[in-house]
Amino acid sequence: MASIEIERLVRFLGRLPGLGPRSAQRVALALMKRPDTLLRPLADALTLCADRVRTCGVCGNLDAVDPCAVCRDPERDRGTICVVQEVDDLWALERSGTYRGLYHVLGGTLSALDGRGPEELRIAGLLARAEAAKAEGVALEVVLALGVTVEGQTTGHYLAERLTPFGCAVSRLAQGVPVGGEMNYLDEGTIEAALRARQRIV
Amino acid sequence: MASIEIERLVRFLGRLPGLGPRSAQRVALALMKRPDTLLRPLADALTLCADRVRTCGVCGNLDAVDPCAVCRDPERDRGTICVVQEVDDLWALERSGTYRGLYHVLGGTLSALDGRGPEELRIAGLLARAEAAKAEGVALEVVLALGVTVEGQTTGHYLAERLTPFGCAVSRLAQGVPVGGEMNYLDEGTIEAALRARQRIV
Repeated sequence: MASIEIERLVRFLGRLPGLGPRSAQRVALALMKRPDTLLRPLADALTLCADRVRTCGVCGNLDAVDPCAVCRDPERDRGTICVVQEVDDLWALERSGTYRGLYHVLGGTLSALDGRGPEELRIAGLLARAEAAKAEGVALEVVLALGVTVEGQTTGHYLAERLTPFGCAVSRLAQGVPVGGEMNYLDEGTIEAALRARQRIV
Repeated sequence: MASIEIERLVRFLGRLPGLGPRSAQRVALALMKRPDTLLRPLADALTLCADRVRTCGVCGNLDAVDPCAVCRDPERDRGTICVVQEVDDLWALERSGTYRGLYHVLGGTLSALDGRGPEELRIAGLLARAEAAKAEGVALEVVLALGVTVEGQTTGHYLAERLTPFGCAVSRLAQGVPVGGEMNYLDEGTIEAALRARQRIV
């Protein structure tokens, strides 16, 4: 139907979460109607991300520098590591503006159903950070900010158990997080309340 | 929160139809999790479209060549011009596989409310094509395939009136098109039935 260039664009747009084939066409057309103010800038923004953004080797965050800006920030409290499932959970916490420690992005949750074990997640790196803190004599607190879902909580229990040998405190966000909810969709107020009321579990 | 590269990407994604700020973030993250299979190919597909795709000077279609592939196609019936609102309406008609004439993309409908007059649409070009057909002695039929909405039908009546002096036949798609519907969302069967039963109005 359309030119191969447009068909190719529609095909890739259709692979984005939340876009079906028809909405991909609608988006492609909207882009082509604004070549200078939307199409080209979006293409450049994507290319820039592809060229520059990488995964932080320390915490798993996405940034143009590695280690990421959060890991490098001297103002950050290095005695606290907040463990999240995904990078957008980290973004949600940053939006709340109430957390000043470091992060660790797991890349998901343990899931027997999906066959996702500890090796599939960024868990070894977290344990290495806890071990390093112990070696340096830093009193480390690990705050678990995982989704209040079966898998999120199972992952939290597993991490608490694995972190115990390193003598660090492990807490989780207060159960102000709505049951069944995902970190990514929380409003800032709920995140702030849950952070303040976090409960130590180990 | 995120790096400036990511924030910029999220901002442009959020301008796409159907994507709010949160879904733009979700899309950005999905892209960055698949840098080689999605992020880079999408960036390249967009750049290619920005570099190559242009509006056909004859009919308003989008293509890498001008005049577009439809206008150039010697197999196409040059005695029929189908008038559509937008390029995705043209795509929908092409998908139905039953139309073999040429097109004319108006770029919208007349709208008193939105202050869109004939000058804002590709109407002068359509009249020029009708005039050229008359001068060449071609018996032209203009098929109006506009949305069955107040604005679509108003635009159709206006075009029929303006086309009369050129002695061309003007028809519209049969009213098998659901009232209130938009061309873009029709199934192929409905489009085919409506094309076959088109009714001459001038």
